[in-house]
Amino acid sequence: MPTRHPSPPTPTAIRTVFFVSDGTGVTAETFGHSLLAQFDGVPFKELRMPFIDTMDKAADVIERINNVARVDHMRPIVFSTLVDPEINYAVRCAHGLFLDMIQTFVEPLEKELGAKSSHSIGRGHNIADSKEYDQRIEAINFSLAHDDGQTHGGLADADVILVGVSRSGKTPTSLYLAMQYGIKAANYPLIPEDFERQTLPSALPRYRNKLFGLSIAPERLAEVRNERRPRSQYASLANCRDEVAAAEAMMRREGIRWLSSTTKSIEEIAATVLQEVRLEPRSF
Amino acid sequence: MPTRHPSPPTPTAIRTVFFVSDGTGVTAETFGHSLLAQFDGVPFKELRMPFIDTMDKAADVIERINNVARVDHMRPIVFSTLVDPEINYAVRCAHGLFLDMIQTFVEPLEKELGAKSSHSIGRGHNIADSKEYDQRIEAINFSLAHDDGQTHGGLADADVILVGVSRSGKTPTSLYLAMQYGIKAANYPLIPEDFERQTLPSALPRYRNKLFGLSIAPERLAEVRNERRPRSQYASLANCRDEVAAAEAMMRREGIRWLSSTTKSIEEIAATVLQEVRLEPRSF
Repeated sequence: MPTRHPSPPTPTAIRTVFFVSDGTGVTAETFGHSLLAQFDGVPFKELRMPFIDTMDKAADVIERINNVARVDHMRPIVFSTLVDPEINYAVRCAHGLFLDMIQTFVEPLEKELGAKSSHSIGRGHNIADSKEYDQRIEAINFSLAHDDGQTHGGLADADVILVGVSRSGKTPTSLYLAMQYGIKAANYPLIPEDFERQTLPSALPRYRNKLFGLSIAPERLAEVRNERRPRSQYASLANCRDEVAAAEAMMRREGIRWLSSTTKSIEEIAATVLQEVRLEPRSF
Repeated sequence: MPTRHPSPPTPTAIRTVFFVSDGTGVTAETFGHSLLAQFDGVPFKELRMPFIDTMDKAADVIERINNVARVDHMRPIVFSTLVDPEINYAVRCAHGLFLDMIQTFVEPLEKELGAKSSHSIGRGHNIADSKEYDQRIEAINFSLAHDDGQTHGGLADADVILVGVSRSGKTPTSLYLAMQYGIKAANYPLIPEDFERQTLPSALPRYRNKLFGLSIAPERLAEVRNERRPRSQYASLANCRDEVAAAEAMMRREGIRWLSSTTKSIEEIAATVLQEVRLEPRSF
């Protein structure tokens, strides 16, 4: 007689993924994650192999790839941004699915541009003494110094000033804008006193064209605030509702562009701010 | 008679580059930059087209690509991470060199994994209410609260504690570790008083296995400090030499691993710290 319950599904085998790079591996990893995220049901185990810039290190990576293939009874996925032709070729020959994120596109680019590639990677982003780099550090320091309305001095130098209630996502967004794009992003809280007075904090109106608002669903805000100050008036849903409604009313009244951060990642908020305020990245 | 001087080289025409994405465009841009950086002599003009998630927006992008091709008399380079098949196909047919960073790798991955891709991108990184996301925000808040030795409380929760002289790169590295990897990175300055006493700040020895040092060439340090406090004793080359020598001696004596940040980018320093301290990223 057949059992009434179907047999449990076979557990999906975990596939091992290598991110191999002669640099930091951030590009290989960011990009590899975007691709792997499209295969929801498949569990992955990820191994990061940065700074593979000698044949000795390559030999070690190859051994690890081949070991995994043997132990897993499946070849691992290898996302590579290896630029050096000799190292690239050696790792390509290991027992993995080699996804070559450089060579795949370098050849059509060379043909299109009528120029040879330098076979070196990541320089643009990585030269620590370049002007862009200094701008980025300066932007990070600026954003730190102008976090949460700490100082009014220097707001004239801000590229953008984020406003919103406490815990609406202003700080991480400001830091991300600085770190990723070299944007001087200040942030300034909107607090109950501002809502009672029904005016923007006095430091802000003169910079109206730099203001950008972040709002957030009251339910999510209460959750976030409760982690910080459990069961406080500050974190109560009723108070969060009042503050958010008052902040949104104020932003509408003052003609401040704003978005809701509720379901957005820091990256998405930052990219939207850039686009809306029409800021050009100073570095990347 | 031939002239003695060769004619000046024709100025290289600027090539327009589009980064087109249905998400933030960060992946397309990061990756595109790595590739473009390999073509040193070629000047590029970059245009970012994030959030292209409807056919209407795609039509706008296509028009811009075709306009550029006409005005430049050269087709632009188009780095795409467009996932939606219809939008992808439409933009592919515009008059550009279409470099498809998704489809190129999705097909071999589908075959290898025996699974269909979901044709949606960036979810892993972008779900604002996921556990990884909360960890990342928590790490950013932790790193901010533990910047520059502000508080000793909570150091037990740190994943890593960066130490080094003032302006050696501790703050940006801590924030990057938190932002990019969800690592709780505190940082703590080594100051002249510590060097006189010849001991680590008293808060640190109990966390020796979490300490990682950043050093920097005195010449570069003097440059950086001079921007902050021009012509001060603090920024003088002699003082920078003394502080750096004393800090490096202390780190050697205390058995603290360290690297020189002088010619490294924030990304490179962070990736090296991760590797040396054998930290696993909590998020990406």
